[in-house]
Amino acid sequence: MLTIQQAHDAINAHVDPFEAHDVSLPSALGFTLAADVTTPHDSPPFAKSMMDGFGLSSASYMSGHRSFRVTQLIAAGTIGMSISEADEAVRIMTGAAIPAGVDMVIPIEQSNHDPSTNVVTFTDLEVRPNLNVILQGSNKQAGQPLLSAGTKLRAQHIGALAEFGIANITVRRRPIVAIRATGNELVPYDFPLVPGVEFPFGAGLIRNSNEPMLAAQIMQAGGEPIPLGIAPDDPDTLADYLITGLGFDIFLLTGGVSAGDFDLVPPTLKALGVTEVFHKIQLKPGKPLWFGVYNGPNNGNTCYVFGLPGNPVSSLVCFELFVRPTIEKLMGLPGFPLSMMTATLKSDASHHGDRPTYHPASFEWTATGPEVQTVTWKGSSDLSATIAANCTIAFPAGTAHYPAGSQVQVHAWLS
Amino acid sequence: MLTIQQAHDAINAHVDPFEAHDVSLPSALGFTLAADVTTPHDSPPFAKSMMDGFGLSSASYMSGHRSFRVTQLIAAGTIGMSISEADEAVRIMTGAAIPAGVDMVIPIEQSNHDPSTNVVTFTDLEVRPNLNVILQGSNKQAGQPLLSAGTKLRAQHIGALAEFGIANITVRRRPIVAIRATGNELVPYDFPLVPGVEFPFGAGLIRNSNEPMLAAQIMQAGGEPIPLGIAPDDPDTLADYLITGLGFDIFLLTGGVSAGDFDLVPPTLKALGVTEVFHKIQLKPGKPLWFGVYNGPNNGNTCYVFGLPGNPVSSLVCFELFVRPTIEKLMGLPGFPLSMMTATLKSDASHHGDRPTYHPASFEWTATGPEVQTVTWKGSSDLSATIAANCTIAFPAGTAHYPAGSQVQVHAWLS
Repeated sequence: MLTIQQAHDAINAHVDPFEAHDVSLPSALGFTLAADVTTPHDSPPFAKSMMDGFGLSSASYMSGHRSFRVTQLIAAGTIGMSISEADEAVRIMTGAAIPAGVDMVIPIEQSNHDPSTNVVTFTDLEVRPNLNVILQGSNKQAGQPLLSAGTKLRAQHIGALAEFGIANITVRRRPIVAIRATGNELVPYDFPLVPGVEFPFGAGLIRNSNEPMLAAQIMQAGGEPIPLGIAPDDPDTLADYLITGLGFDIFLLTGGVSAGDFDLVPPTLKALGVTEVFHKIQLKPGKPLWFGVYNGPNNGNTCYVFGLPGNPVSSLVCFELFVRPTIEKLMGLPGFPLSMMTATLKSDASHHGDRPTYHPASFEWTATGPEVQTVTWKGSSDLSATIAANCTIAFPAGTAHYPAGSQVQVHAWLS
Repeated sequence: MLTIQQAHDAINAHVDPFEAHDVSLPSALGFTLAADVTTPHDSPPFAKSMMDGFGLSSASYMSGHRSFRVTQLIAAGTIGMSISEADEAVRIMTGAAIPAGVDMVIPIEQSNHDPSTNVVTFTDLEVRPNLNVILQGSNKQAGQPLLSAGTKLRAQHIGALAEFGIANITVRRRPIVAIRATGNELVPYDFPLVPGVEFPFGAGLIRNSNEPMLAAQIMQAGGEPIPLGIAPDDPDTLADYLITGLGFDIFLLTGGVSAGDFDLVPPTLKALGVTEVFHKIQLKPGKPLWFGVYNGPNNGNTCYVFGLPGNPVSSLVCFELFVRPTIEKLMGLPGFPLSMMTATLKSDASHHGDRPTYHPASFEWTATGPEVQTVTWKGSSDLSATIAANCTIAFPAGTAHYPAGSQVQVHAWLS
């Protein structure tokens, strides 16, 4: 059985980022840049006034002029003409381009403007060249690095790209991820079970909680979920149910990967031409994990196939440990190795068992660093125990007691 | 001028969460529950086997029986019948319901089954009642609290709701947020400016970076953006441009809210019947912020109107400080007061000015708590400076030097 690290290495070796393609800027939020972006021009693209006021030559003012003829009104977005006379000034608005001959702006509050003569006068003020002027290129100059490949785009990045008119953004697309649950015991999540009734219709059945949960995890990770419903544990028809999923970028199966009589998923996938990369890993929950690759009719793309355990907590944890980094790598983020952090245990914990355990837990950031505690968890079927969880604690194999205050390794579940 | 706290109180006093309504479970990710949810039945809904193996009576085994007739095969999802004979056992699969008379399961690996006689025998094993059985209700019992109102739904919550067949989820809808930029100097973000050319077509114009940036911020906060484009600074037509935005839940304007000759937004909004709640606050960047409410033809809902400053960094910061908490409160999260955290300065910083400043900064979680440093920021137009930022540091009014290691208050920008 592979270790978790070996399983990661095996997946990582098979997964290449998608080809880069362009999306329009407003839809680029959350995508990862696939190419560096440099500034196509200066920012601001022209010198502009930071104030509503009067623009004039600082040399004129400093040589003693205090009275100026106002020859133009320059609103933001309009075009001014250069000034050349020593007693000439312009009325200029915030954000308007500074014309040639002007190199400072005196705010309107410090100006005495006579509308009848259109003359503005000033008292003695402390002035300097470029007073209240933002020089061309003072924020960024043309050809400077703006954003690096690998940046996951957030709102302020969208704004900065818009400022420079970069309307098409080179990213890697979202993987389309099909989900198929297997198991004769499964019914859709909105199927009405009748509790308390012993063995008429419905007893022995459980709802397919994995499908909507995995769909939500796929969306949180940046992928696009395609729920395919439930396949029965039927050797005669299972292949027909599974072949559909192989036309997508990633195919998640749940259930049918253990060693039981009805665990038909691995042989059926192999019969369909999926190459097994590994089956079973040293992990709790998630020992039966199956991973394979399929190079069939998915527009020339590989389909990455994960056979997740059927128990919902196992599916939840295996998704975060193996599928999410795969989605991230396809979209241009590192994905592997897994991001772990060190946190302080808030209450005692213990571990026993021959496999490393990723135990659902709850962490929070505090003024002195991250703190974590396990949630009460009754096993792989106990999904409601994970409601308060936002991470797993990685306990090594073996028996050990971890007193409160111990440092443990934590894998956060990101939204 | 109001303080930031007073401005928050004023907004908070006007904003009520939306009415609750139901969405289908698969689309509930990211919404906030508007009502407590209790479990409609036990989990698991029946006792089930944790193993592939043979189910029998622990009392029979403990009274000495080691050989049992196998009378049924119970696969997951099928219905078994009760057993009553002391030498009777059932072949049972993982996840299958335990029939009456069976109270433990011996794994197949520890069993000797003769298919010709259909008799299973065991060596002496350490057994107990409920060995390898998950009892009905052992994860959750019917009527227990599952999720509380106010929970923002993540993947594992979707899974837990699905397990209980809760197909309709009571949440509060997304606000629809219109965006209108004002300013004669603005052109759409994909408008080709010609840099370096002095004053022909294009000089004096800048792109409307606020619209795609605010649209991204609205999406990050959970709202649905409606970009309305650019309105000119024209007193004769501005009302026609603004009235469109008043039909949405929130209307964000950018620009035109300072005291300049062309700052027509506040009087035009008032003429349209929007009630001003406040104008101008003690904040840098964002002093000109305007807020009002409109009870017009928006399906009976109030429209909350924010006049944001036109400079993109001011818009970015004011959105995070005032609009995001409004969206959150409408959707059922607390929203106010603002979540601040204490972080340690990684490098020296200083502040001067008569207004509190929310300075773009970059924080990261470390093993010893959050650390933060300012980004180099040349003013409200310097949007590219915010590329490395993921928060603001709140510096109080006045002049002060903050050496590295100081504790400062930080407002994180959440994605």
